[in-house]
Amino acid sequence: MTIKAYGAQASDQPLKPMRITRRAPGAHDVRIEIAYCGVCHSDLHQVRSEWEGTLYPCVPGHEIVGRVSAVGAQVSRFAAGDLVGVGCIVDSCRHCEDCGAGLENYCDHMVGTYNGPTPDAPGHTLGGYSQQIVVHERYVLRIRHPEAQLAAVAPLLCAGITTYSPLRHWKAGPGHRVGVVGIGGLGHMGIKLAHAMGAHVVAFTTSESKREAAKALGANEVVVSHHADEMAAQDKRFDFILNTVAVPHNLDAFFTLLKRDGTMVLVGAPPTPHPSPQVFNLLMKRRSLAGSIIGGIPETQEMLDFCAARGIVADIELIRADEINEAYERMLKGDVKYRFVIENASLTQPK
Amino acid sequence: MTIKAYGAQASDQPLKPMRITRRAPGAHDVRIEIAYCGVCHSDLHQVRSEWEGTLYPCVPGHEIVGRVSAVGAQVSRFAAGDLVGVGCIVDSCRHCEDCGAGLENYCDHMVGTYNGPTPDAPGHTLGGYSQQIVVHERYVLRIRHPEAQLAAVAPLLCAGITTYSPLRHWKAGPGHRVGVVGIGGLGHMGIKLAHAMGAHVVAFTTSESKREAAKALGANEVVVSHHADEMAAQDKRFDFILNTVAVPHNLDAFFTLLKRDGTMVLVGAPPTPHPSPQVFNLLMKRRSLAGSIIGGIPETQEMLDFCAARGIVADIELIRADEINEAYERMLKGDVKYRFVIENASLTQPK
Repeated sequence: MTIKAYGAQASDQPLKPMRITRRAPGAHDVRIEIAYCGVCHSDLHQVRSEWEGTLYPCVPGHEIVGRVSAVGAQVSRFAAGDLVGVGCIVDSCRHCEDCGAGLENYCDHMVGTYNGPTPDAPGHTLGGYSQQIVVHERYVLRIRHPEAQLAAVAPLLCAGITTYSPLRHWKAGPGHRVGVVGIGGLGHMGIKLAHAMGAHVVAFTTSESKREAAKALGANEVVVSHHADEMAAQDKRFDFILNTVAVPHNLDAFFTLLKRDGTMVLVGAPPTPHPSPQVFNLLMKRRSLAGSIIGGIPETQEMLDFCAARGIVADIELIRADEINEAYERMLKGDVKYRFVIENASLTQPK
Repeated sequence: MTIKAYGAQASDQPLKPMRITRRAPGAHDVRIEIAYCGVCHSDLHQVRSEWEGTLYPCVPGHEIVGRVSAVGAQVSRFAAGDLVGVGCIVDSCRHCEDCGAGLENYCDHMVGTYNGPTPDAPGHTLGGYSQQIVVHERYVLRIRHPEAQLAAVAPLLCAGITTYSPLRHWKAGPGHRVGVVGIGGLGHMGIKLAHAMGAHVVAFTTSESKREAAKALGANEVVVSHHADEMAAQDKRFDFILNTVAVPHNLDAFFTLLKRDGTMVLVGAPPTPHPSPQVFNLLMKRRSLAGSIIGGIPETQEMLDFCAARGIVADIELIRADEINEAYERMLKGDVKYRFVIENASLTQPK
């Protein structure tokens, strides 16, 4: 069947209404009527082919929430009417060590929700800027938030899990001093989640104007990173720094804030590398620089349940599908608090 | 009292015989007649002021072994005649969290065996290219190897602990696949120690000529790193890579060899940074880049005892003090298997 979607036909084209097809649900598939889809910076990178290898037509979107409308004969965990979500992953090999550990995000054959390989037409996956999606039940998440929060739940599927997973892996919690660098789509979730885990949270921003907003999100302290005195006061105090900034920047300024055995984890992927870190800053306190990418399916469910139990959602700005190109431009300027979410009912027929 | 030593008066001067003074042993001090001192690449960096801040006269040397000749009134752990060693550390604050954890190497006030602050003349510490050294007992190590191995024990005090500490910290052992990059003073010890810990050891070298030598040191496999097929065969297989190379080089080629959650630790400190690593290589498998510097005093004793119990020493080339300038030039060319050690009895009077 063909459905309405919003996507691009080439890297230099704006997104426009289009029609795409979805497969009929197989035995283990769940068909979801998409209510909302968050807008991630990756969507923009992909649709503009800023990373190599974008396939067209490109329909982005991997922060998907909605309601189940049909399930395959073998599906037992979901039924029509359930509130569910789909994040960045719609398939993986299911038998490697990573899949066995519930870390499908690290599987070498992980299939992304868009631009991934699939036998379905047109030969690559198409994402959540669309009316429906059909996904194997293994990759479908249950949403336990009240339906009224559904739009604000969408960004948890990428921004939420991308920050939750490293915070958990590096054991953020009471007694830990956690830094969050950058207060955007990822960073605002990092602050909320680290705070909810009981850590002492220090937010780092380049914008004096974000100071009060960061406190409102749950930061115990806010440091404007170009104020040398504020940075110096944080010297060697951190167990962990979650760096959400996706543009190249000076990492050394943050390494020196780590205690012995502290780790800074990068969750943003700039198109060109950061200036190379000074080796001495790593050696001197046995510090680490690590990377982390989204999270596995079981951990994504855990994150959703953690957030549902605490009433945690993203701070969003709801848009119509035909506002997406403008939203991309605003996102590039950091002009969003803190995540755009598309109301999929606004999808229109292509002309 | 004044003693014979070998050092430099300026960054552009060769090392020459000189006389220096040592303090009389205080209540907690141990005076050591130095039998041998290893030659570390750091000695060369320091004496030539390739790192900032070298103070002159500069007497390098922090791989010191010898025999106790006197102890202070309060010293209970050592007595005249004991075989002992001194490594890179001769003092620290003794009350911070790092000192409390026996990680004096990470203390902010760690005092290096040379070029560190001291009330003793000339106001900075002078190292092991000398007849004697006087050190607080807390920083003196017991040597349990047979005396016949003493010269070859000297490099354990820096090259040994610098590789042992990260191997232990990142839990190298049976079932682990450990890479050792670079087969020099540090790398040859890394291979021996990782092998003795029971890990499967893969040595990486740029020299085809080092293949057999690396196997003789204990490597299970040897990879010549500019052979693309050999590198590809190691893709995503390592738990841990110990990178001992102290010149800037491409780290990405080694990151891709790490499994999920694998760590590459740098123990070499190049004077300029490595080419910046690709962030995607860190993100994709939650990999880490870490640094480690020497080791704490308790761990250094543990390492010496581990080596004594297994007959592990460094492979050395014994030299006279007046051969040190030539040895530096050979070290820069990698022309040493694998560590020069000075026989301190060869020290002569300045002219």
